[in-house]
Amino acid sequence: MRGKTRQINVGTVKVGGGAPVSIQSMCNTDTRDARATLRQIEALAAAGCDIVRIAVPDMAAAEALREIKPRSPLPVVADIHFDYRLALASVDAGADKIRINPGNIGADKIKLVADACRGAGVPIRVGVNGGSLERDLRESLGVTPQALCQSALRNIRMLEEHDFHDICVSIKLSNVNGTVQAYRMLAENCLYPLHLGVTEAGGEEMGTLKSAAAFGALLCDGIGDTVRVSLTADPVREVYAAKKILKALDMGRTGIDLVACPTCGRTQIDLIGIYGELERRLAAVKTPLRVAVMGCAVNGPGEAREADVGVACGVGEGLIFKKGEIVGKVPGDEIIEILLREIEKMTGEEICRKEQN
Amino acid sequence: MRGKTRQINVGTVKVGGGAPVSIQSMCNTDTRDARATLRQIEALAAAGCDIVRIAVPDMAAAEALREIKPRSPLPVVADIHFDYRLALASVDAGADKIRINPGNIGADKIKLVADACRGAGVPIRVGVNGGSLERDLRESLGVTPQALCQSALRNIRMLEEHDFHDICVSIKLSNVNGTVQAYRMLAENCLYPLHLGVTEAGGEEMGTLKSAAAFGALLCDGIGDTVRVSLTADPVREVYAAKKILKALDMGRTGIDLVACPTCGRTQIDLIGIYGELERRLAAVKTPLRVAVMGCAVNGPGEAREADVGVACGVGEGLIFKKGEIVGKVPGDEIIEILLREIEKMTGEEICRKEQN
Repeated sequence: MRGKTRQINVGTVKVGGGAPVSIQSMCNTDTRDARATLRQIEALAAAGCDIVRIAVPDMAAAEALREIKPRSPLPVVADIHFDYRLALASVDAGADKIRINPGNIGADKIKLVADACRGAGVPIRVGVNGGSLERDLRESLGVTPQALCQSALRNIRMLEEHDFHDICVSIKLSNVNGTVQAYRMLAENCLYPLHLGVTEAGGEEMGTLKSAAAFGALLCDGIGDTVRVSLTADPVREVYAAKKILKALDMGRTGIDLVACPTCGRTQIDLIGIYGELERRLAAVKTPLRVAVMGCAVNGPGEAREADVGVACGVGEGLIFKKGEIVGKVPGDEIIEILLREIEKMTGEEICRKEQN
Repeated sequence: MRGKTRQINVGTVKVGGGAPVSIQSMCNTDTRDARATLRQIEALAAAGCDIVRIAVPDMAAAEALREIKPRSPLPVVADIHFDYRLALASVDAGADKIRINPGNIGADKIKLVADACRGAGVPIRVGVNGGSLERDLRESLGVTPQALCQSALRNIRMLEEHDFHDICVSIKLSNVNGTVQAYRMLAENCLYPLHLGVTEAGGEEMGTLKSAAAFGALLCDGIGDTVRVSLTADPVREVYAAKKILKALDMGRTGIDLVACPTCGRTQIDLIGIYGELERRLAAVKTPLRVAVMGCAVNGPGEAREADVGVACGVGEGLIFKKGEIVGKVPGDEIIEILLREIEKMTGEEICRKEQN
């Protein structure tokens, strides 16, 4: 097992040093459209995201960050490439973290970025990936875990030379095995918190599986402090995928444990639809609660005896039950809202009235 | 990296010793209903399963095995508990492998089973899991990876004492981390091929993620020779899940690489439905071929230039293309069949006429 990593603060979220594994995602809006970006950040927050990243490709985006940051419910990371002035402008605009690849900022300018970040208490993620490996390493070692690890260590050293240590690191390849080897090597060579991810993971299904495989290999060994599941999909899906993977590893945060029966010949209602909407709308609830969605009244209440609350669906209606006891009968189209109101009462948490998605 | 394991033969399928990772599943039919069981075995074979297991809880099931085995397209493993006579009857009925937990067969009877299996050239899987751990180990070590590993080694020794070495081993817990630690320990202590699985993994989504995480952690280290994804679902789904996980780990066998665009506002056809049916019906094809299913004619043929064959769907029709060139236009309801016939021509493999599912 790996020892504790150094801890950094990304806004109010602690990363590393034994803090719970946090979930990150990245907006795919045009950052300059502050309204659209904020709307997406709110959807990500509702889904359970902890930290959001936005691209800052130009000065207009850095200016938009100034508008986005104070209204964002999540800490905001500015993603910067090549131009140190965008990093300085982002720090000035209130970014909670900067993600750079120091190598492509340039050794001469990196001191300015490190100084600005130190002054503002803003950590830096050193983000290395297969696609942006330095030429000398690529030529001598190829796009290998060894090369990426060396690149990361070299980039870390560029910051350390300016006495900057408020760092986290990512080192992503597009294949699971290489990613696992690279992070393992890195974990042996530095104590900074690690941001896990598989780059260009693919669509929702394959990308989730690649991430599950890589995160499983690493987190089981105590490697990894924060995660992003990269998907060619709505960023909200990245958050759901990350939450599910952490849950599969028994590292999920508390919250709703939503269980459902496999549908069968007795199912007379759109159970998969009900399950899906409950899953989305309950995603942000933090109180631990077991909610059962059963397809029929035959086995429903009995099988769900361990649930705190649930529904056993019949033809066009549902029996609502608590702790295995039926407490009421409601029309099919009211099942979702009535369950959500019960859950609100039991948890004391407010649940959004309409679908976020 | 782990060294090569010993190789065993499960019917015609080689397991261990560097053979490709094989995929297993288990019928959920009543074994005594030979017809239903054979139908399910055929569906599993069509989906890409390599080895199938059936429960043999009584003598009638062992008798049914006699009928099932000669007509099964897959090697058949008999799953036996407690009664050594069921193991002997299953070997006599032609089982290609026996899965037992020698501890619950009894030290006095295990010689009879080992002798019968040796005589028939039938390997034995020592299947240890958290639920059936011997009491002394449970009491001294708890249901821990250490206890399971000791149980497996003890059970292996019971067979080795009778000079039986035609063994593979599984050691399953219901949580990912424990399963990973248990298999790692076992891999350090024996050279028999290992059958990977997470027991009681759950429904399709969570069970697949747990298996992906565990298999990722193990297979990246060269641990594991054959896999089963246990799901509370149709066994055919276990096979799809296993294939996808192996693909995510770049360990997939050759066969169809089915790619599809994310649907968008331009999509005018049930692309997800078309994708799903193609996925099912192409699952057993072995020739490597890239098949693209695109939602519109705007980007379809262009984006799919790397595909061997595909379709770009318009309103109620589809443009069939090969290597990026449009070769014909067909009505929407003929897209699937025409694509399948093209793929048959290109691969020389026969594709089932109707859906298996």
